[in-house]
Order: sequence, then C-alpha cells, then structure tokens
Amino acid sequence: MKLIFAIVSNDDSAKVSSALTKAKFSVTKLATTGGFLLSGNTTFIIGTDDEKVQEVIEIIGKHSKKRTQMIPSSASYGVGMYASYPVEVTVGGATIFVINVEQFEKL
Amino acid sequence: MKLIFAIVSNDDSAKVSSALTKAKFSVTKLATTGGFLLSGNTTFIIGTDDEKVQEVIEIIGKHSKKRTQMIPSSASYGVGMYASYPVEVTVGGATIFVINVEQFEKL
Amino acid sequence: MKLIFAIVSNDDSAKVSSALTKAKFSVTKLATTGGFLLSGNTTFIIGTDDEKVQEVIEIIGKHSKKRTQMIPSSASYGVGMYASYPVEVTVGGATIFVINVEQFEKL
Ligand code: NI
Ligand code: NI
Ligand code: NI
Repeated sequence: MKLIFAIVSNDDSAKVSSALTKAKFSVTKLATTGGFLLSGNTTFIIGTDDEKVQEVIEIIGKHSKKRTQMIPSSASYGVGMYASYPVEVTVGGATIFVINVEQFEKL
Repeated sequence: MKLIFAIVSNDDSAKVSSALTKAKFSVTKLATTGGFLLSGNTTFIIGTDDEKVQEVIEIIGKHSKKRTQMIPSSASYGVGMYASYPVEVTVGGATIFVINVEQFEKL
Repeated sequence: MKLIFAIVSNDDSAKVSSALTKAKFSVTKLATTGGFLLSGNTTFIIGTDDEKVQEVIEIIGKHSKKRTQMIPSSASYGVGMYASYPVEVTVGGATIFVINVEQFEKL
C-alpha cells in the first residue's frame, strides 16, 4: 500500500480528479497554495496498491502536462503609447511524492 | 513515531476531533473534498507514538462507524403525482493510513 | 528524498513561508485548524533532499520560535468594578514530521 501526494495547478485539478475517479482510484483533495506562485494549486492524496502507483502517475501526468501558452502582454513606450504582444508562459505540471503505508484501515 | 492520516466525513468530524483531543492526542484538521462524493470530508493528521496507533484507530472507528440511515426520497409517476418513500443510505466510515516518521521535532 | 510536514501557527506562517521560499525550497501550504486551539494554523508540505532536511528545520524554527507575549486581561471584582492587568501567554512553536519518500516525480 502506498500513499501518493500529488500537487497540481488548479487549472488541471478538475481533469486530474475526474480521470482518477473514472479509473476507480479513491481521491481526497486539499485546497492548497504554493509558496512561489500566488495562484492556487490542489494537493491530491491517493491511497493505492503498490502495483498501481505507476498507473496513478501516468493519469496525473497525462492530465496536467506542462505546456506553453501564449498570453497577451503589453509594454509602454512613452506617454499614451503601448505595444501589445503575446508572451509565452509555461502552465501545468505536477509534483508527486510516493510514501510507504505501514498500516491501512478502512472502517 | 507514526503519522496517521484519517479521512472521515464532515458529519463525524466534530465527534472524532473532540474524542481524540479528550484522549490527549494532538490533532490537525484539513478541509478536504472527496473525488466521489460532493459532500466534504475532513482529513486528520495525528502524530503519535507507535504503541498508541491502535488507540487512535479505535477512537476514530468508534466515532465514525458506518451506519445506514433512512432519508426521504420521492418519485414522480405522472404530471403532479409523486410518491414519497424512505431510502436507506450508508453514511460515515473512515479511511486511515499509518505512515512511519523518520524524524520528529517539537520546536 | 524526504517529505516534511510542518505545522506552525498562522501568526508565523507568512514569515516561515517567505524564508523557505527565499532559500529556494518548494513549499505547499494547507489551511488547517488545530484540535486544541481554535486559532488556525498552517501545515507546510516541503519536499527536499535528505541532506537539506536540517536546513529546513532550522529555517522553520528560527521563524516560529516559541515566545511569551503579554496580553491585556481583566477581572471583575463586583458590579462595575474591573481590574485590567497583563497576562503572559506562549505563542508560536512548530511541530515537524519528516517522512521518507519512496518515489519522487516532477512532471
Ligand atoms: Ni482523460
Ligand atoms: Ni466518545
Ligand atoms: Ni528570516
């Protein structure tokens, strides 16, 4: 038995959650905030058998892949003069910790 | 030293929390939501000595036992025609993970 | 790799968070409440290499030290008669659990 802590951005949280639930994994979600980013993220706690850890990691990875996105930005070049241009930012990604469970009880 | 993660439904959270506190266990509560249920649950983090793990599990089990409950339901049989009848649902229950602690510091 | 769960009072949470972030540690914060105290606390989850665990503990300890504080209190000695006097209370402190990580993935 393993306990998996997975931290994903709020953008991907709903997709990750529904994909794990569809694959019959039992999921608990914590509302969390990162120290770096002001944007929130979600921490998932997933308990699963050792031989299914890799499946969990693949599901999370597939639904929270790091990707670049173009967002509008602007710069001012003087009083009342602006240039608007797209900027590439990286969004998504997941951080996953797998922990050994000594004892598991379902009451 | 062990760290216990216990997930109980919000219905039982207050009873579990006060029973653990009365028994002198140090309890931290996280607001969490399940993936299956829309209803919220509470995750408890409890640090305790190895020989007291079983006591914690018993306290949690005693105050969050799975039980059936009759709730009112209704079905419509045509325009303006309803039958109201009780439906049995299962509530309560707890999921508990016990983790080994490598190092513990109380600062 | 280790996973550190650190519970600090909300009073110290911002200081601890910015000190860990400045030292380049990756921090996830959970909003939590204690069982004893009605006042909230914050649980930090920090993943780090084994050889940096002690540095994390020192940073947390330095920014959440237990200290006494004088707060105003009052007692009534009869109808309309009050004495106001300072009372010493202890604030701060941290509880830290270090857990071994079996597998770590950064996706
Ligand atoms: Ni999918
Ligand atoms: Ni009781
Ligand atoms: Ni500092």
